[in-house]
Amino acid sequence: MTLFDETLAAIRPVDQDASNAAVARLNSLTKPLGSLGRLEEIARRYAAIRRDGAARWGSGTIAVFVADHGVAGEGVSAYPKAVTIQMLRNIAQGGAAIGVLARHFGFGLEVIDVGIESDTSADPMPGVRYRRIGPGTRNLMREPAMSLADARRAIEVGIEVARDATRAGVTVLGIGEMGIANSTSAAALLAATTSLPPDRIAGRGTGLDDARLRHKVEVIRQALALHRAALRDPITRLSALGGFEIAAMAGVCLGGAVHHLSVVVDGFIATAAAAIAGELHPAIRDYLFFAHRSAEGGHALALEHLKARPILDLDMRLGEGTGAALAMSAIRAALELFHNMATFAGAGVSEKIR
Amino acid sequence: MTLFDETLAAIRPVDQDASNAAVARLNSLTKPLGSLGRLEEIARRYAAIRRDGAARWGSGTIAVFVADHGVAGEGVSAYPKAVTIQMLRNIAQGGAAIGVLARHFGFGLEVIDVGIESDTSADPMPGVRYRRIGPGTRNLMREPAMSLADARRAIEVGIEVARDATRAGVTVLGIGEMGIANSTSAAALLAATTSLPPDRIAGRGTGLDDARLRHKVEVIRQALALHRAALRDPITRLSALGGFEIAAMAGVCLGGAVHHLSVVVDGFIATAAAAIAGELHPAIRDYLFFAHRSAEGGHALALEHLKARPILDLDMRLGEGTGAALAMSAIRAALELFHNMATFAGAGVSEKIR
Repeated sequence: MTLFDETLAAIRPVDQDASNAAVARLNSLTKPLGSLGRLEEIARRYAAIRRDGAARWGSGTIAVFVADHGVAGEGVSAYPKAVTIQMLRNIAQGGAAIGVLARHFGFGLEVIDVGIESDTSADPMPGVRYRRIGPGTRNLMREPAMSLADARRAIEVGIEVARDATRAGVTVLGIGEMGIANSTSAAALLAATTSLPPDRIAGRGTGLDDARLRHKVEVIRQALALHRAALRDPITRLSALGGFEIAAMAGVCLGGAVHHLSVVVDGFIATAAAAIAGELHPAIRDYLFFAHRSAEGGHALALEHLKARPILDLDMRLGEGTGAALAMSAIRAALELFHNMATFAGAGVSEKIR
Repeated sequence: MTLFDETLAAIRPVDQDASNAAVARLNSLTKPLGSLGRLEEIARRYAAIRRDGAARWGSGTIAVFVADHGVAGEGVSAYPKAVTIQMLRNIAQGGAAIGVLARHFGFGLEVIDVGIESDTSADPMPGVRYRRIGPGTRNLMREPAMSLADARRAIEVGIEVARDATRAGVTVLGIGEMGIANSTSAAALLAATTSLPPDRIAGRGTGLDDARLRHKVEVIRQALALHRAALRDPITRLSALGGFEIAAMAGVCLGGAVHHLSVVVDGFIATAAAAIAGELHPAIRDYLFFAHRSAEGGHALALEHLKARPILDLDMRLGEGTGAALAMSAIRAALELFHNMATFAGAGVSEKIR
């Protein structure tokens, strides 16, 4: 059996007993019942995912998957393709937004080249893990972005990242990405997943003007028409329209569930990956936290389709896992409260009158 | 001239030059223009408030004002009045939610008794500052909650807290509160401020059932009728319906503006204070960050009335400054990005194609 098949077979629902134990703890703390709102829900869900009523914290890491996209050749991005490798270096050196946030919050940062155009693995960039599937995807407007075999291999990269994180003591794993033109791939996937028209899902990405946004929508329309027969099944859809980083993030969702990790889904592009993972196994959804409502395109609509309420709403649209990092800091804060608040009995505080 | 009058006279608008300098810096960082969304807006506003285009960080503190309310005698809270002093002790000892969050985020915590029923100042609780206006307010359903002189004194306590924080190097000051029955006082003030009916503004506070919520609304209706003549002027309205902690938080908003502090307004009750401060001086609004949309009563409506979009929306309704602490951590993160991200030039990343 392949790692992909093994992983799907090993996924179990989250643990109801741990969830109940967490609720009992939350209700004993010196605050009106339920008054910490979604922070209580976060702590309860974390406990259920960990199968640990004490909701013990390990550590948090953000995994940033970087890849190139053949569809960049269609002029769907405001930045040249060369920016992918420039930003890979910037992220690995800690100068990008995600590096600043990871250091500030005390989270780990994994940067994984899953397939950018230039292969630097012979003279590796410090701080980059090389798990290259190829030198970028093919142009999804003309042909499938990748083979089925490559889609599975990219998913398995993500599964391995989740496994390695678990071995290193990680309990919360954020997923983010970088890759010029990847919002076109994600929009195509989300349009196919939600059945919403591309012009409601696609957005300006890194900053398209109106004319180029219309062009991007047209590229997506043509791709959806070309690959119509492949869209029903999540794996063939992923290989037709996806990117290596999107497939890898879907893999983190699957592997995260097996290893009882809270997986924190960043924004628009990570959501496309999470949607695929959710179709591959129905129990996945309970292992995911959606970090924020991105300002990119139809992210709000995609989240509604997934019945997901994100933790934050800060009009961010940067990617890299930046929204995930902020949401992980909220999860960390929720657990601090869970572990360290006084109880009514311990602090000698009277309970409710009736 | 009193400290109150001096303070009002000293308030100036925020600084446009610093705001422009901050925008120039933000646009030089390695990210698509504007892609950090509200985090960029936060950094820009912080710079404008500080009159410092470099947006230098000092430190953050949460000031928690604690007081009792005569209207608690009307049975408008789910908890007995004795909980105020119990929670004052719990907050000062660090067992309450706000203590956990302040420690976790590295923020200071100031706990100020502005007038609870029991006077413990002769045998002071460790960690409590005593600035008592009196042993709680009078019953606002029967008579003005406090005299005009006491309202001004309580405001001046807040002005002094802002001044002392500035001297200690604080640049972001959160305001929170604790006081059994204070959501009745805040709801009465916000109903008077917004002209919305009390049943749309008042909420369940610490957990009222339907019957007691109806009773609370009726108490507020009677109070608004009794004090009708006092409602137009913000200071007479505050003395009729307010609490010492609400007046003190309004004072922090005023003093914060004078001292170029970013004041982070917690939830429902702190918003009632901020609304009063905004009426006392029109420039105040630009010095305030609204922390979160509370689940309490008509907080969302009150924020709309104030044209304020809060930073977070986590269904919290605890008070104590807990929402402020979380929002301050977002402000801190926004400034980390502002200071520490690489620039396009520095990192050798290509800029937008056109």
